[in-house]
Amino acid sequence: MGFVEKIRDHGKITFFDLRDRTGIIQCVGQDLPKVNIQSAVEVLGKVNKRPEKMINANIPTGMLEIAVEKLNILSQAQELPFDIAKDELDLTLPTLLDFRTLTLRHGNVQKIFRVQESIMEGFRIASQKLGCVEIFTPTISASSTEGGTNVFKLKYYDHDAYLVQSPQLYKQMLVPAFERVYLVSRAYRQEPSVTTRHLSESIQMDCELGFADFEELLDAMEFTARETISYTADKCMDILKDYKTEDIKINPVVPRLTLREAQNIVKERTGIDHTLEPDLTPEDEREISGWARSEKHSDLVTITHFPTKKRAFYTMPDPKNKEYSLSYDLIFRGMEILSGSQRINDYQKLVEAIKDRGMKPSDFEMYLQAFKYGMPPEGGFSFGLERMTMLLLGLGNVRQASLFPRDMERVDFRFSSKKEKVKKKGH
Amino acid sequence: MGFVEKIRDHGKITFFDLRDRTGIIQCVGQDLPKVNIQSAVEVLGKVNKRPEKMINANIPTGMLEIAVEKLNILSQAQELPFDIAKDELDLTLPTLLDFRTLTLRHGNVQKIFRVQESIMEGFRIASQKLGCVEIFTPTISASSTEGGTNVFKLKYYDHDAYLVQSPQLYKQMLVPAFERVYLVSRAYRQEPSVTTRHLSESIQMDCELGFADFEELLDAMEFTARETISYTADKCMDILKDYKTEDIKINPVVPRLTLREAQNIVKERTGIDHTLEPDLTPEDEREISGWARSEKHSDLVTITHFPTKKRAFYTMPDPKNKEYSLSYDLIFRGMEILSGSQRINDYQKLVEAIKDRGMKPSDFEMYLQAFKYGMPPEGGFSFGLERMTMLLLGLGNVRQASLFPRDMERVDFRFSSKKEKVKKKGH
Repeated sequence: MGFVEKIRDHGKITFFDLRDRTGIIQCVGQDLPKVNIQSAVEVLGKVNKRPEKMINANIPTGMLEIAVEKLNILSQAQELPFDIAKDELDLTLPTLLDFRTLTLRHGNVQKIFRVQESIMEGFRIASQKLGCVEIFTPTISASSTEGGTNVFKLKYYDHDAYLVQSPQLYKQMLVPAFERVYLVSRAYRQEPSVTTRHLSESIQMDCELGFADFEELLDAMEFTARETISYTADKCMDILKDYKTEDIKINPVVPRLTLREAQNIVKERTGIDHTLEPDLTPEDEREISGWARSEKHSDLVTITHFPTKKRAFYTMPDPKNKEYSLSYDLIFRGMEILSGSQRINDYQKLVEAIKDRGMKPSDFEMYLQAFKYGMPPEGGFSFGLERMTMLLLGLGNVRQASLFPRDMERVDFRFSSKKEKVKKKGH
Repeated sequence: MGFVEKIRDHGKITFFDLRDRTGIIQCVGQDLPKVNIQSAVEVLGKVNKRPEKMINANIPTGMLEIAVEKLNILSQAQELPFDIAKDELDLTLPTLLDFRTLTLRHGNVQKIFRVQESIMEGFRIASQKLGCVEIFTPTISASSTEGGTNVFKLKYYDHDAYLVQSPQLYKQMLVPAFERVYLVSRAYRQEPSVTTRHLSESIQMDCELGFADFEELLDAMEFTARETISYTADKCMDILKDYKTEDIKINPVVPRLTLREAQNIVKERTGIDHTLEPDLTPEDEREISGWARSEKHSDLVTITHFPTKKRAFYTMPDPKNKEYSLSYDLIFRGMEILSGSQRINDYQKLVEAIKDRGMKPSDFEMYLQAFKYGMPPEGGFSFGLERMTMLLLGLGNVRQASLFPRDMERVDFRFSSKKEKVKKKGH
């Protein structure tokens, strides 16, 4: 049983490729019932060795074929809106997503999600090696604690509630119980614009470690990233080769730069002075990645010590210079994939930090409870599954790395435009 | 480094137990700074063998102790609202949850989530053995397709959107792409009442298998449940013994009954006639579980063929008698833990089924797209992580098996009542 992938009709004799999750095999039969591409079928027949010259021609459907005695159509597909049997789908992104259930059947699209599955597996293995316990945190929150307008609000029985922007506060609250935790959760952000690298709902992978200082946190996050990427590259090397992104330089020593050091390197290399900016620009990220790859043979580079004011309230200021914080981003192939920090673990200082940002400690009552009763030095990091997938495969848009991406303009279909109108690239 | 778990103050000499994720060790020191229970501390000292008579007394903190030379308080805990150093926490459920960040530090509470972690691991291993690919489905949906009033509505940019009641429709849509899929997702239900076994947000584990008939689906779901339970029992036997729930009868052959057969057995055993009811009552579930355990030596029992009208629109009616459907529930220790069915895979029949329920096919456009272009016979099942945890440990309330449970009355804290007021059982 399987799906009819391609049909070659030679009058009385018909050849077709049958796909299932194990691969593709050619079928050949006479006077077969009319079947459309992508139909689900059951084939009864005899498995034969293919003619010698066909085997030598190195055909992807393998050395065997089925001489069809009976073809049962389990589910006849309607006529397709575009040719999906081609090696490359030449569709625009909107069409790719408007026909998502169909385009996901294409081999090249499926490969993206094989890589995604491996990233997740690699992340779990790395987290378990760090001694983390897997936890499950809620996505519904009573207050919009992490930031104002970007939060989705919902009607929760007779109350207002919000979708969490990240599991950040909950994972910290679990450090006193489990010490080291990891989790896979959802991040919801009402992003006010459409970019190639943001989604309104995304899958976030997190770790949080208690009794860890800044150096240990940097070690742990670089370990997790290296392990995750290496695991995926090992498992999916064939796919990375298909996408021509197999040349990954993972160095046991990840170069570490403070933000200001990184900006100075960018200035030396490009002449552009961003040394007073509070963050790297996308161009800076690409430039410093280029530097790390050519000078340090590493596709990963760690940036530390972002200005305290620009990071979340719970970020620990550097005791040596409180203008800067014990925070870090990890850059992979020219884009940030991971963000984290050591956290303020002192109850009083945390209450002050909340007030300093103009927020109310009473909105953080359960969170603060965890700090009242003993919170060790701790910190952690998080990364986005879709962005990681995008960068490993060199995709142009993060939406290609989400099965059903949500953004300002789209939930399954676009809100505004006409549905199911095929657009091809360059047309 | 670790948390101060218990303190035994003998004037000049102080004994305290230090807990970290690896276990507990006793510390002993003189003239130590004043430290409160649950504080995070760093201890410098010498590791000694404990006196022989202490070792023989079989003390849980082990054969070694630390002679403290220096005690650094990393985070001093405030005075606790109740005694958490006791072997058993005698708190009411509301207090257990109002002080969640504190009560989760108690050994017996932590054990619940060790079991939960193992259930998830066991489920993943079983799903992978079935050949399923891990997928990630969205939780934000454009229409409230699965049922009216129980759905949470949210403001999504300038549009209305809804939280999915289950990943059901999305996992089906992925069968033509990946054939066999598994996923861990969120289920959101605006349950209009407070029961001991429902949550408003819960973690759901799902499989969906293409090219599978009813028998194969039953085999697959029983396999997954048996593997998950056996894996957890193997890994967490000590915890199950602590909870006195280690006596699990998992039989390779799970008894299978139609709903009507099960109701007849209940009638024979109790004299209560429910043979015209459309489902088992909670009492019926307990009774049929008792039957399966005593007559078939199985804590699992499969119930099939629920009335078509009582199951979701996508459920396949039994071709032999369309009043009943190719649906199933799995009962474990007196309660349903899993539900599933073979699905309607024919596009036209599915459109009819949607209309028959008074719903609009246009609200299911992306879902129906998957069926238009060839959908094999398929089906699947889902189970809830918290309920599974509850039943494996014999907990009285599913909230005990959720780190931060959400229900009609509570998001972290209860909406109505005064916060942080300790209540003990029977007080």
